[in-house]
Amino acid sequence: MLTGPAGRRPVIAGLGITEMGKVYGRTAAQFAADAIRLAVADAGLRLSDVDGLLTNAGVSGAGVGVGLQQQLQLRDLRILSEMNAYGASAGAMVSYASMAVQAGMAETVVCVFADAPLREGQGSGGAYAGRRQPAGFTGLLPAAGLTSVNAMYALAAQRHMSTYGTTSEQLGSIAVAQRAWAEMNPLAQMRDPITVSDHQSSRWVAEPLHLLDCCLVSNGGIAVVVTSAERAAHLRRPAVHVLGAAQSHPGHPDARDSRFGLESGAVRSGPAALRMAGVSLRDVTVAELYDCYTFTALLSLEDYGFCAKGEGGPFAASGALAPGGSLAVNTGGGQLSSYYMWGMTPLSEAVIQARGEGGERQAPRNDVILVSGNGGILSHHSTLVLSPHPRD
Amino acid sequence: MLTGPAGRRPVIAGLGITEMGKVYGRTAAQFAADAIRLAVADAGLRLSDVDGLLTNAGVSGAGVGVGLQQQLQLRDLRILSEMNAYGASAGAMVSYASMAVQAGMAETVVCVFADAPLREGQGSGGAYAGRRQPAGFTGLLPAAGLTSVNAMYALAAQRHMSTYGTTSEQLGSIAVAQRAWAEMNPLAQMRDPITVSDHQSSRWVAEPLHLLDCCLVSNGGIAVVVTSAERAAHLRRPAVHVLGAAQSHPGHPDARDSRFGLESGAVRSGPAALRMAGVSLRDVTVAELYDCYTFTALLSLEDYGFCAKGEGGPFAASGALAPGGSLAVNTGGGQLSSYYMWGMTPLSEAVIQARGEGGERQAPRNDVILVSGNGGILSHHSTLVLSPHPRD
Repeated sequence: MLTGPAGRRPVIAGLGITEMGKVYGRTAAQFAADAIRLAVADAGLRLSDVDGLLTNAGVSGAGVGVGLQQQLQLRDLRILSEMNAYGASAGAMVSYASMAVQAGMAETVVCVFADAPLREGQGSGGAYAGRRQPAGFTGLLPAAGLTSVNAMYALAAQRHMSTYGTTSEQLGSIAVAQRAWAEMNPLAQMRDPITVSDHQSSRWVAEPLHLLDCCLVSNGGIAVVVTSAERAAHLRRPAVHVLGAAQSHPGHPDARDSRFGLESGAVRSGPAALRMAGVSLRDVTVAELYDCYTFTALLSLEDYGFCAKGEGGPFAASGALAPGGSLAVNTGGGQLSSYYMWGMTPLSEAVIQARGEGGERQAPRNDVILVSGNGGILSHHSTLVLSPHPRD
Repeated sequence: MLTGPAGRRPVIAGLGITEMGKVYGRTAAQFAADAIRLAVADAGLRLSDVDGLLTNAGVSGAGVGVGLQQQLQLRDLRILSEMNAYGASAGAMVSYASMAVQAGMAETVVCVFADAPLREGQGSGGAYAGRRQPAGFTGLLPAAGLTSVNAMYALAAQRHMSTYGTTSEQLGSIAVAQRAWAEMNPLAQMRDPITVSDHQSSRWVAEPLHLLDCCLVSNGGIAVVVTSAERAAHLRRPAVHVLGAAQSHPGHPDARDSRFGLESGAVRSGPAALRMAGVSLRDVTVAELYDCYTFTALLSLEDYGFCAKGEGGPFAASGALAPGGSLAVNTGGGQLSSYYMWGMTPLSEAVIQARGEGGERQAPRNDVILVSGNGGILSHHSTLVLSPHPRD
């Protein structure tokens, strides 16, 4: 049994977000180092307090690994690892860090993601070309023209549309709702209002996905500090309790899978994380959902059970997700409008909301916040349940 | 608080070791898949029982990642991650898997390492040339001729020699003791007896390290299955309880560090893991120590406290580590004589010893087994405490 001092509860006590977007001249490793410094300072800690480090890198992430310890001249660490589960990595890192804190294996663990795919004078379209790719790009798929993540998600969305009658306009309503949130987020890259008509007239990236169905591409880094509630009580920021964590990595996740486009790992990781947290879905008032595409957010809404299966389109079109709607979803604008930092995008906004620091966009109720991660074309899914309050 | 059903205790219930050594025509990913199949079968489980997968790869490890799930057609997984902390990775994977089992986050987690650096018709000396290198190879060090791991460890060993009077013959006695164990290990690559005189006459790799101070280079893969004691009670093999786990990653771990060559992370991870296990060092009767070089094993013996600081040389030369000695160390021959699978070498032999399956080389007492991992030129260290018995 790996146990430490009784009753040690894991919390997120610090958040660091670097300059974000078209920021050139820094490597992913430098963004990671900057994010760590910011997160530690945010918590009111010093780098010398850090005794654990978990890292995850995007496609350009060379150097965002265990070597960050040396770059930052960190002291002896009690846990250190590079981790990768694509879009589920942020959830995986926070899980491992939280359990390590509970077990007394470490006390102050920084989890960091950074990426720098954009290069000056080069469009974002080619940012990921020829780089590290998730599984599913071997065999017959490329021969069928499925040579990019965009194409695979387009196929998934198309299947959902033909099965449930989901429309492009309904997907567009997700983009519009998130942009309305982004207008109130000073950190968001895209803050000009859009309409469903703008969505409809934006160019195809891969039919049925328009440009405004797709996430941004961002250079930057985000880090969070995981520690114990006991320690956080003496720190600078309100503690954000990690009440539940679960992952689901569906098998055979490609276009040959019978569930492709119709189901994500939220189906399993959602209930598992909520159960661990001791809450039900009805308690969730804020959902920060991984949205590499509008479609990903839609699928997660259904799979978590915020609406019935196949009803994601009408649910989104009803305005439920927009400011003032019944469920506060992607309150920072998400990856579609704020910044694209893999699982750290929803996690960072959840921390802001849990602390009540959302300013103009603060959700009125923030007791139970659900955070999702998604990656590898619906192959990987993580769920975290966060709260300003401990479970007790 | 991330908790699951009360009293769930993590154990290792399966071990898979592929063909090992100069085995050509298989990629690291194929070795990984083979090791997983073997480990699952060893436990008396089926691949469809696996609900968690953690992977780690050596220098040639492309493909030993989350994609293994698809290669093996595994079902939905509840945890999945690629992890890397060099030689401490095996300890890190078992820690994360154990805590996940305790928390009810997963039930049957496979941890795998595989590598295939050797290519037919090419000497082992160049196996690692130009590949992924641990930190510490930038800046002035290469300019000073420190262009390889061998050279860095040679410098570390030299420092120990000049500080404590450790001799090459004493290091040689470690190689000789481990070879004596290897003679009784059918899995060992090197089984011919050697003497200190053989050690002395073997060529310099990097003075003061002779060829027989250095580990083998192996192609192969090893996997273990981590599950709960409750589940393991109904499985095929005796359960090996994970009683304690800790890591220590000393900062600034290069030749400019004042501790370089004199201290490893065993100083901190040892006591922490033993404390968690509720045992003391005196209870340890078998130590499986990461031995990329004789010197690494020697330093760990001192840093764990099996002998006084600086006394590792005389301690080894006394015959204490050889079959029949006072402490059973690297009972399979270690990385020097059996096979080089990073942290999976000591872990796999510890599982064999804990189960009492060591045959001719079985240690008479196996109640408390200490397992170390080491990497990045003394930058990373992990300790596991294993036992055939639960802590109760």
